[in-house]
Amino acid sequence: MKNPPSLDSLITALRVLPGVGPKSAQRMAYHLMQRDTAGADRLARAIDHARSHLKHCARCNTFSESELCGVCADPQRRQDLLCIVEMPADEMMIEQTRSYDGLYFVLMGRVSPLDGLTARDLPLEQLARRALDGTVSEVVLATNFTAEGEATAHVLHTLLKDRGLTLTRIARGLPVGGELEYVDPGTLAQALYERRGIKD
Amino acid sequence: MKNPPSLDSLITALRVLPGVGPKSAQRMAYHLMQRDTAGADRLARAIDHARSHLKHCARCNTFSESELCGVCADPQRRQDLLCIVEMPADEMMIEQTRSYDGLYFVLMGRVSPLDGLTARDLPLEQLARRALDGTVSEVVLATNFTAEGEATAHVLHTLLKDRGLTLTRIARGLPVGGELEYVDPGTLAQALYERRGIKD
Repeated sequence: MKNPPSLDSLITALRVLPGVGPKSAQRMAYHLMQRDTAGADRLARAIDHARSHLKHCARCNTFSESELCGVCADPQRRQDLLCIVEMPADEMMIEQTRSYDGLYFVLMGRVSPLDGLTARDLPLEQLARRALDGTVSEVVLATNFTAEGEATAHVLHTLLKDRGLTLTRIARGLPVGGELEYVDPGTLAQALYERRGIKD
Repeated sequence: MKNPPSLDSLITALRVLPGVGPKSAQRMAYHLMQRDTAGADRLARAIDHARSHLKHCARCNTFSESELCGVCADPQRRQDLLCIVEMPADEMMIEQTRSYDGLYFVLMGRVSPLDGLTARDLPLEQLARRALDGTVSEVVLATNFTAEGEATAHVLHTLLKDRGLTLTRIARGLPVGGELEYVDPGTLAQALYERRGIKD
């Protein structure tokens, strides 16, 4: 006894989603075909629509439906500051802080040998062209403080050093509201190591 | 700063999948649009194909691409035994044991008040028609031994009792290879309560 072929194909196709194994794919397929057929149709249409409308911003490489994304097209942003992040979600988090008014470059990835992603999978040529186009004076490396993010920052540093740019990295340390007693030793060590002078 | 509308629609559409919250939906959308666009296209096509080809077996209610599923169409199966399960995956598990040669009825659901599923969401009329069509003499209730499965078995028992059918329930007890020391008290109590005579 086997599943009908179209159900099996759907289960297989759902496994392209990250974090979805055989059991969840089967559960998802049952759900789509039994409980929410309208949702299944909406999902297929949303994929098709995104596939035909989504491209990448020519300047910062984030997802965009137009040649330039909203941030890159905004003349109010500081043109001399370029912040490099891994994913669009990271850019959105920084925008939510309302403390940065420069521009971005979105890598759409990271160096992650375990996932088979190396520096060659990053748009480094496009980034170099953008960072060295004459308008940028400071590049802020805002990749994650994970092993992958640090490796990515190292690749970016190698790429952009000695090119007349100021290279900075966002700060590590205790979170706002953080207590020494409860912070992990690595973060506390880094906070001590990167201690800064107190302004009067 | 916001996501492009087509990306937002895709993230929303992915949330119809069971167990997918806003963060995983975003991760899935990035993955489909950045890392695996071919997989995205395959997924959309698989949904469309399954939606247009999958229907329910007229006899046992499982997913099928033809009027009758393979099991129901097989003349070698015992026609007087009907096993009621919650989902097609349960039928597949029973088939894998190669210890049952009767027919099935697949509820495609269960009674689950927490998910808003009541007895009215079950195909009880179709089941009653099938179980009382004159060919069936024994009905095996093989819903899960969860609270929802037990509630479903209770509904089925109420529906089918006093109709001249033998009603049975699959056995509870220690698993094969199970040790008393490590089994949970509820299962052990049930194994004692449902102890059976030893045949010489």
